[in-house]
Amino acid sequence: MITVGILGGGQLARMMVLAGAPLGVRFVVLDPVADACAGQVAPLQVGAFDDPVALAEFAAKVDVVTFDFENVPAASAHWLAELKPVFPNPAALAVAQDRLSEKTLFRELGIPLPPFADIRSRDELAARVGEFGLPCILKTRRLGYDGKGQFRLRNEADIDAAWQALGAQVEKTGLILEGFVAFDREVSVVAVRGRDGEFRAWPLTGNWHVDGVLSASLAPAQASAAQHEKAMSYARRVAERLDYVGVFALELFCRGEELLVNEMAPRVHNSGHWTSDGAETSQFENHIRAVLGLPLGDTRVLGHVCMLNWLGRMPDVAAVLVEPSGHWHDYGKSPREGRKVGHANLREDSAEALAAALERVGAALGRPAQVAPVVETLRR
Amino acid sequence: MITVGILGGGQLARMMVLAGAPLGVRFVVLDPVADACAGQVAPLQVGAFDDPVALAEFAAKVDVVTFDFENVPAASAHWLAELKPVFPNPAALAVAQDRLSEKTLFRELGIPLPPFADIRSRDELAARVGEFGLPCILKTRRLGYDGKGQFRLRNEADIDAAWQALGAQVEKTGLILEGFVAFDREVSVVAVRGRDGEFRAWPLTGNWHVDGVLSASLAPAQASAAQHEKAMSYARRVAERLDYVGVFALELFCRGEELLVNEMAPRVHNSGHWTSDGAETSQFENHIRAVLGLPLGDTRVLGHVCMLNWLGRMPDVAAVLVEPSGHWHDYGKSPREGRKVGHANLREDSAEALAAALERVGAALGRPAQVAPVVETLRR
Repeated sequence: MITVGILGGGQLARMMVLAGAPLGVRFVVLDPVADACAGQVAPLQVGAFDDPVALAEFAAKVDVVTFDFENVPAASAHWLAELKPVFPNPAALAVAQDRLSEKTLFRELGIPLPPFADIRSRDELAARVGEFGLPCILKTRRLGYDGKGQFRLRNEADIDAAWQALGAQVEKTGLILEGFVAFDREVSVVAVRGRDGEFRAWPLTGNWHVDGVLSASLAPAQASAAQHEKAMSYARRVAERLDYVGVFALELFCRGEELLVNEMAPRVHNSGHWTSDGAETSQFENHIRAVLGLPLGDTRVLGHVCMLNWLGRMPDVAAVLVEPSGHWHDYGKSPREGRKVGHANLREDSAEALAAALERVGAALGRPAQVAPVVETLRR
Repeated sequence: MITVGILGGGQLARMMVLAGAPLGVRFVVLDPVADACAGQVAPLQVGAFDDPVALAEFAAKVDVVTFDFENVPAASAHWLAELKPVFPNPAALAVAQDRLSEKTLFRELGIPLPPFADIRSRDELAARVGEFGLPCILKTRRLGYDGKGQFRLRNEADIDAAWQALGAQVEKTGLILEGFVAFDREVSVVAVRGRDGEFRAWPLTGNWHVDGVLSASLAPAQASAAQHEKAMSYARRVAERLDYVGVFALELFCRGEELLVNEMAPRVHNSGHWTSDGAETSQFENHIRAVLGLPLGDTRVLGHVCMLNWLGRMPDVAAVLVEPSGHWHDYGKSPREGRKVGHANLREDSAEALAAALERVGAALGRPAQVAPVVETLRR
């Protein structure tokens, strides 16, 4: 029996284990934290991602390696790849870990994106802000996620404030300035590529963020056929260039018919969580199929699906489960301010039935604001 | 966090764990065998079902108890129920463990069934065979499953042979003689009842057995609306009389429009395995929802679904996974002659698409005979 090793033991690893177990594989999870939630469903090895002894022990237990966490040190991924097959490959991971490499790749591939620049000094920041115009966003090149390691500049005075906040990172993680895009909507494409190069993508997903963290997703997104085509083409170009194996996501901004890529996540992605209950094959199962070299599953959406993220603590489960289409995903984590602790999926055959279900759930949980933009989109 | 204890660590426990984990519960599995396959996805306690020390240790770890195996000694279930809630309740379990009690209950509830009689001696056997006519079947009252502990009598001479084969069981498990029904088709109803009495059932499933073991299931079964109604009514009567909580199955024989009950399984059931990929909510998830007192999920079928059982050893996974609708369930067991090691589910929107997919899979795996009766039914 094949054993898949996962670096990182959070909810993504947990859901990969639950979806992958029926394929007849075993899992081992490596995480620095002893109560990592994937440890509830698979053997957990507690160890640091940069500890060679821990990595060697981990490598000895597994046949193939993948990730729930993209910020594993590139050196560790390379080192593991000497011992066992690693998917996605460490070079692809390294590109996706670095906003500058990633955006440079998008530009090379002819994928439209907002202006960006490598920033090495306060003066360079000031010059580029002048060039891009305000507002714009200073980010660390590495290790930021969910709005962390970012500073939005709204006026000239913010240049000093931004440099004060992030300037010290210039040596550690590097910095990148991104021009601001006044987008209408955010969408993502979640895609998968097999070991034999087979490529599939789920339909475009519409996403709503609150304070930089995903709040709700809707599939299929309301997008034109041309936008859908473009997004698929972008995802395919990226996957093929990187010789990528497994699931990844591209986050995109829509401005009218225009589609601009924001960033890439080299792993199963929060905006693909709806696939567990609303697609013929989930992103979690297809990631494991890809890693194992198995044929990929169908990525079509079954009706209309909405994912609602739960942060901090789980709300009342019954309000969702009384809905015929309600599905629950509790990650088994203890509550903590702002922490992703779970999500719900609602699936209905029609857009109106889904809108009505969301209104009921929003009201029952006292969260009308979370469902409102999705309901409005469904009824547009 | 709630911990659910499961007595028995086979594939049913394994699939309950995989479906129940997203509800935010933990599991502990008790099984006498150290490599019980549910132990790959949940903590496994190795111990005998009738060992009071093992049971006490198990009870201390869990908040609620359920079963993957119905032949847990009734005394053990009763004893556990003194310590923790047990669903289904031990009295219901005891009825379902004993073919005579079960059939007596069906008769009391006005549910049609083939003739049956308690058998205590060879003379009684001979008398009842005369009454029921040939062929008929002598079975142990307890502990038989998948055709084990059964003797089919085809002629008068078989009376002695049957008594020789099973007579010694009269004191241990008891014996029951069942009249033979020349049925056209076998169907089952898989149903679930919540702690609050809410009752739901999945659509009738058509089943094909080979040598007494399930080979294929099709949902929805081809049955009349009247048969569907009757089956639901029978399942509801049984569940309410037993104050049953959780999933159970009734196996039924169809003779024209007539519907005769064969037996009850007080647990998730092989004929409900299609629900993992073809129903809004699976039998495994709904069983755990019921046990936890959560609202039950929708039991509707999504299109047409076929389950193919794999016995002995797993066939080639790729032949199923190349089908857009193909889903794989490998129980993580080592191969053994006749052992249930896994199954596949195929789901399609139309009956014809499912028939075509089954033909391709049957051909690719060299198992045309396994799919043929299902294909024929879908095209009838």
